[in-house]
Amino acid sequence: MARIAVVAGDGIGPEVVAQARKVIDAVLPGVEATEYDLGAARWHRTGEVLPDSVLAELAGHDAILLGAVGDPTVPPGVLERGLLLKLRFAFDQYVNLRPSRLWPGVAGPLATVKPGEVDLVVVREGTEGLYAGAGGALHRGTPAEVATEESLNTRHGVERVIRDAFARAARRERRKVTLVHKTNVLTHAGSLWARAFEAVAAEHPDVTTEYQHVDAAAMFLVTQPQRYDVVVTDNLFGDILTDIAAAVTGGIGLAASGSINPEGAYPSMFEPVHGSAPDIAGRGVADPVAAVLSAALLLDQLGHADAAARVTAAVGAELAARSAGVPLRTEEVGDRLAALAAS
Amino acid sequence: MARIAVVAGDGIGPEVVAQARKVIDAVLPGVEATEYDLGAARWHRTGEVLPDSVLAELAGHDAILLGAVGDPTVPPGVLERGLLLKLRFAFDQYVNLRPSRLWPGVAGPLATVKPGEVDLVVVREGTEGLYAGAGGALHRGTPAEVATEESLNTRHGVERVIRDAFARAARRERRKVTLVHKTNVLTHAGSLWARAFEAVAAEHPDVTTEYQHVDAAAMFLVTQPQRYDVVVTDNLFGDILTDIAAAVTGGIGLAASGSINPEGAYPSMFEPVHGSAPDIAGRGVADPVAAVLSAALLLDQLGHADAAARVTAAVGAELAARSAGVPLRTEEVGDRLAALAAS
Ligand SMILES: CC(C)[C@H](C(=O)O)[C@@H](O)C(=O)O
Ligand SMILES: CC(C)[C@H](C(=O)O)[C@@H](O)C(=O)O
Repeated sequence: MARIAVVAGDGIGPEVVAQARKVIDAVLPGVEATEYDLGAARWHRTGEVLPDSVLAELAGHDAILLGAVGDPTVPPGVLERGLLLKLRFAFDQYVNLRPSRLWPGVAGPLATVKPGEVDLVVVREGTEGLYAGAGGALHRGTPAEVATEESLNTRHGVERVIRDAFARAARRERRKVTLVHKTNVLTHAGSLWARAFEAVAAEHPDVTTEYQHVDAAAMFLVTQPQRYDVVVTDNLFGDILTDIAAAVTGGIGLAASGSINPEGAYPSMFEPVHGSAPDIAGRGVADPVAAVLSAALLLDQLGHADAAARVTAAVGAELAARSAGVPLRTEEVGDRLAALAAS
Repeated sequence: MARIAVVAGDGIGPEVVAQARKVIDAVLPGVEATEYDLGAARWHRTGEVLPDSVLAELAGHDAILLGAVGDPTVPPGVLERGLLLKLRFAFDQYVNLRPSRLWPGVAGPLATVKPGEVDLVVVREGTEGLYAGAGGALHRGTPAEVATEESLNTRHGVERVIRDAFARAARRERRKVTLVHKTNVLTHAGSLWARAFEAVAAEHPDVTTEYQHVDAAAMFLVTQPQRYDVVVTDNLFGDILTDIAAAVTGGIGLAASGSINPEGAYPSMFEPVHGSAPDIAGRGVADPVAAVLSAALLLDQLGHADAAARVTAAVGAELAARSAGVPLRTEEVGDRLAALAAS
């Protein structure tokens, strides 16, 4: 039976994760879950972000379910670099998976798009690019200061994530992959991405391909999100594009994500895209849908495609049945989803 | 009298630039314009992108009006690096100015925003960051390939563009500046930007400030574009955010831009954000509004604020009077705008 590590985290993290676990238990009884106390609260209390011993323990699990970490009093970078990115890199989670659907029942901001018309997934590279942590500064704090950030891209790292994107596209109905980069300005990395993309595309004659510059893609995600199926892109572009995709499909409150090591050499990690939302924490009003959808991605990754599909369908039914203006209770949504998914 | 260089360029460039010139002549008779033949057509014919002699001649003008350059048969990077970016860097055009307004009469894609509610300007850094051209590749074309792109940021370069953003905000009604970066991941450059921003903000107690990560800003530009007044950000983030801002205000077909050297040591350059649109070139149906709005930015930069305001008002009147579905003729729009602006 699967062993998962649970990092509920800060703010609304524990509330939404509790619902995700409820749903997992309903569709796959017997999953063994171990809780880990990480995040802003622990850092405030102990000064620790991610002790090596905890990292080693996490490595022994099949997957990690994370709620949300952070609060406004932690300096920028501490938990991002020390916890989230540390896990993505340490566990070689090179596929950062972010599906976006405009669910029936959800009012998106676009006048031009109907529910059900948007169903895309961004496969964002998770272990390279500008997230590598390469950079520095000279003459800091003086008028002569210079600061650099370096984007590192390897054929190894680029090709494997593109391969994953094509494999996903081949299993979808539209079988289309869009590569997004900025080849006209970032010519070195852009050329590497474009050539790797072409090479992998040649192995998938059944998959349609297109290329877009990141600025154009950002625009088309707003004017024509229907056109996308699978989008593959680098770490930073993926960070930006997935928030746009979330925005046009009803907000990051509904968006799920997985940081995946497809080979299973290390645990993959699943988390809602939303943050810890300290303003509404502890009041039982946070929407657990993004955490529950993240649990569905987790189940899928662990080989339980059926259970995952049931959870996703339950979310669809829940969202379709919601009436605007009726306040939601986190627990009740969790109960409903668990019941729907189990049946 | 002002001397401007005109680079009409490719595709619809010449058609829309002709209207922009018509409007300039109507509000400021006597401007001396010299045409320069640059772009895809010249490159195809002669292999030249931007000869040094032409660069030197351009430098002798007060401003440059550019239509659009490029066509799909030119390899990526040739005209971008060799012409557009070359001019931005050679002429130290460190303020890349991109206003976005949702004009009355224009149907934007957002159900949540009413015409007149969005009026923002992005001040994008134009001479540093990932556009510096620093990067390279090793073992190109082999499985061991590594490619890098480096973002270079100096206190000098960052502070001057932030200063420009605050000066603009101080002249606007809402007097608000939003800094957009990714300080939680790009910690070196992010820290430089954040510290320079704080220092300049301290000199402007009358200007409200906020900070957002680029992913959050991309999202809020879709869900709440009304919240922005002046946005200041780095070169690449600005490239992406301005296309989102254009998308939510009716598309890049209406978006103007200026690449500005505020000191006037070199000519500033003004161009519509749209491209050469080869598919509709030569048919007289391209909308010249973005080119005309770029001409307004040019007039403003040359100290003709009144003339600029008249052109902008003419565009407002033109857009408010348009009826959906009535096909437009480039020349007729130009004639109407010239007449409106002159009166
Ligand atoms: C918190 C931050 C480090 C992270 C990222 O930039 O990847 C977040 O924005 C995300 O998208 O998961
Ligand atoms: C053509 C390209 C080099 C340019 C840029 O990236 O700056 C364009 O996208 C723009 O926004 O002006």
